[in-house]
Amino acid sequence: MENTLLKVNRERLLETLKVSSSIGPSGNGGMNRLALSDADKNMRDIFVDWLKEAGLDVRIDDFGNIYGRRKGKRNDGPSVAIGSHLDTQPCGGKYDGILGVLSALEVIRVLNENDIETEYPVEVINFTNEEGARFSPPMLGSGGITGNFSKDFIYGIKDDEGISFEQALNEINYSGSIQNRITNVKNFIELHIEQGPILHEKDITIGIVQGIQGNDLYTVKVTGKTNHAGPTPMENRRDALVAASKMIVKVNEITDEVQGLKTTVGKVNVTPNVTNVIPGEVEFTIDIRHEDNDLRSHAFERLKEQLSAIALMSEVELTITTDWNSETTLFSSVVKDAIQEAADEFGYSKMDLFSGPGHDAKYMAGVSDTGMIFVPSVDGISHNEQELTIDDDIEKGANVLLHVVQKLAEAK
Amino acid sequence: MENTLLKVNRERLLETLKVSSSIGPSGNGGMNRLALSDADKNMRDIFVDWLKEAGLDVRIDDFGNIYGRRKGKRNDGPSVAIGSHLDTQPCGGKYDGILGVLSALEVIRVLNENDIETEYPVEVINFTNEEGARFSPPMLGSGGITGNFSKDFIYGIKDDEGISFEQALNEINYSGSIQNRITNVKNFIELHIEQGPILHEKDITIGIVQGIQGNDLYTVKVTGKTNHAGPTPMENRRDALVAASKMIVKVNEITDEVQGLKTTVGKVNVTPNVTNVIPGEVEFTIDIRHEDNDLRSHAFERLKEQLSAIALMSEVELTITTDWNSETTLFSSVVKDAIQEAADEFGYSKMDLFSGPGHDAKYMAGVSDTGMIFVPSVDGISHNEQELTIDDDIEKGANVLLHVVQKLAEAK
Repeated sequence: MENTLLKVNRERLLETLKVSSSIGPSGNGGMNRLALSDADKNMRDIFVDWLKEAGLDVRIDDFGNIYGRRKGKRNDGPSVAIGSHLDTQPCGGKYDGILGVLSALEVIRVLNENDIETEYPVEVINFTNEEGARFSPPMLGSGGITGNFSKDFIYGIKDDEGISFEQALNEINYSGSIQNRITNVKNFIELHIEQGPILHEKDITIGIVQGIQGNDLYTVKVTGKTNHAGPTPMENRRDALVAASKMIVKVNEITDEVQGLKTTVGKVNVTPNVTNVIPGEVEFTIDIRHEDNDLRSHAFERLKEQLSAIALMSEVELTITTDWNSETTLFSSVVKDAIQEAADEFGYSKMDLFSGPGHDAKYMAGVSDTGMIFVPSVDGISHNEQELTIDDDIEKGANVLLHVVQKLAEAK
Repeated sequence: MENTLLKVNRERLLETLKVSSSIGPSGNGGMNRLALSDADKNMRDIFVDWLKEAGLDVRIDDFGNIYGRRKGKRNDGPSVAIGSHLDTQPCGGKYDGILGVLSALEVIRVLNENDIETEYPVEVINFTNEEGARFSPPMLGSGGITGNFSKDFIYGIKDDEGISFEQALNEINYSGSIQNRITNVKNFIELHIEQGPILHEKDITIGIVQGIQGNDLYTVKVTGKTNHAGPTPMENRRDALVAASKMIVKVNEITDEVQGLKTTVGKVNVTPNVTNVIPGEVEFTIDIRHEDNDLRSHAFERLKEQLSAIALMSEVELTITTDWNSETTLFSSVVKDAIQEAADEFGYSKMDLFSGPGHDAKYMAGVSDTGMIFVPSVDGISHNEQELTIDDDIEKGANVLLHVVQKLAEAK
């Protein structure tokens, strides 16, 4: 292929990222650009200008998703879509999904200046409210166009101040037409920072994402008996916290039994939570992740038995409720192979890995052959003002994205 | 001794308790008579009337403590003081300290109607703000007159609405003279419900309280590293909650090693306490109780080593701060012997035990030969609207108090 070593313009890409970093800075080197905020509007306006300057046909859909379309030879054919999201957490980083959107723009710029025609159209996408920090749940823009959430549901979601998604969308003037939703998609490729330590620790540049790990969330309620710490002998106690602590240790230990299993107890509420009162009730959550759906549910069944045994021994009651079960999303071999080939062409180090967190690609995988490229986050830090992906890795990730687009859109 | 089988008037005592129960009821069979509230004022007014009707010389001191003095033959001699407190928790019970105050009044009534002269004066006391529910810390009235708290400190304490102790005292018109504080005390005897399950479970009527168990309170801070549950491999985690859970289990297990040791983790705060985030910090309290001060501090030193070992293994930081160390208060043999003799004379079942919670007797023990009589709480329930001490036990406890007073005040 003649364009094998075509590369992105590193300085231009870094400069574009720098402009983004100046819109909604959080003051400590990070970002505060909540979805549909004034800062998000400013970023969108500039982004739309950039898309237009790149000669793209710009559309806004009814969720505020922004598309910039570059014609293909088969212009009625399905498009190769690339992008991510420009919104951030309230104390978020400068890279995260921003890297994916602005690298996608850079890919277009490179195709343009090299007069490269593609068989299929290429579309750059900025999805609305990926973070879920302002409007929960996350990934509303991609979830909306793929039918994972209804329009009524999304429009009705309110932020902490009671402002609905619909209001906020209208206020920043980014409510477009339902006709503008992307529908005919051949591939979706999302470049993103890893948000974990694996690539950084292994000193590997390109993560070939195999899919999004399934995860289940449960709430465990342990009920014992509230009593005064002073007079109550140890043998009379039914201490919900001691029992819950044994369970939390067990939740952690089960990961020794199943390779790759991740369990997290992130949230604990103790009642009444007073220094001299034996806790009568403890609620805690279990977040459990593994890419193998069967293994994951099998591990949880085993864990349930172990927790029940602790409850029995501790004379406490145990109830476990399922908050959600989210199956593993597997990405397309076509895209994974293209990423691998591109990395090999450049001689970049690479490895297969799964994504723990969800991404817009999770929903796009339901309507197209989808994949993701990860680049390293220094020390695995993300959703944090200290988040950092070094310039070399940014450039390399964008180069891989460029080549994947060339392959999948059939550049000539 | 001629008056050995002198008894209290059961019906009169129960009737007096019933009047008390009608002043500041909480609506569910319990009491809401916070210190220095309107309900407390109503109760005090009636109580003062009762003291006067019993021919006692009534005084109010500068903490609002109420005294009713019955002359002795040696009227300049030290007095035998009996009583407790009439204030309650916001959802408290009808017995608690009320039983001790109204039984003390009943003792006076019996002495009066039997024309019994005592060598030493007998004083009935109602201490202000024993509960600490409105003005924290507890036991302000007894702590004030015994020099454990300064007058400035007590007067400056504010309730949740910003009203100071001094204001509240003036508002209900119970601010008396510093001259009225009790000073020359031979003995203090406090009848109280056990607030624990021991007497009830063992079916024993009279608890001969050996003292107030010392207790220490510590705050443990465990610092790990906050990270996302999704991408962070188990081996990279420094999960503060898993480490803290192991520690909480250890805090519980150490009681197996030391007979009579009680440990309680009552309060836990997890940061950031979000389902999909690995906790970076956990704070929890350790309440540790044993009557043997050396054993207690030795056990804690051992526990500290064990917690440090867990911290080391878990790669988390551990800091332990001392919130307070309260030494064990031992009661007087003279009083304990008198209680035992009285119980034996009546043929009541009895046992030695320690008090877990603090009482006014704790501070009075610093200025006089002091002791306490416990009667059973059904199921050990206390500070609760369901609190119950059965009529038979009330009568028996008051009978023992009567005889102890006769002995110590040298009734003729």
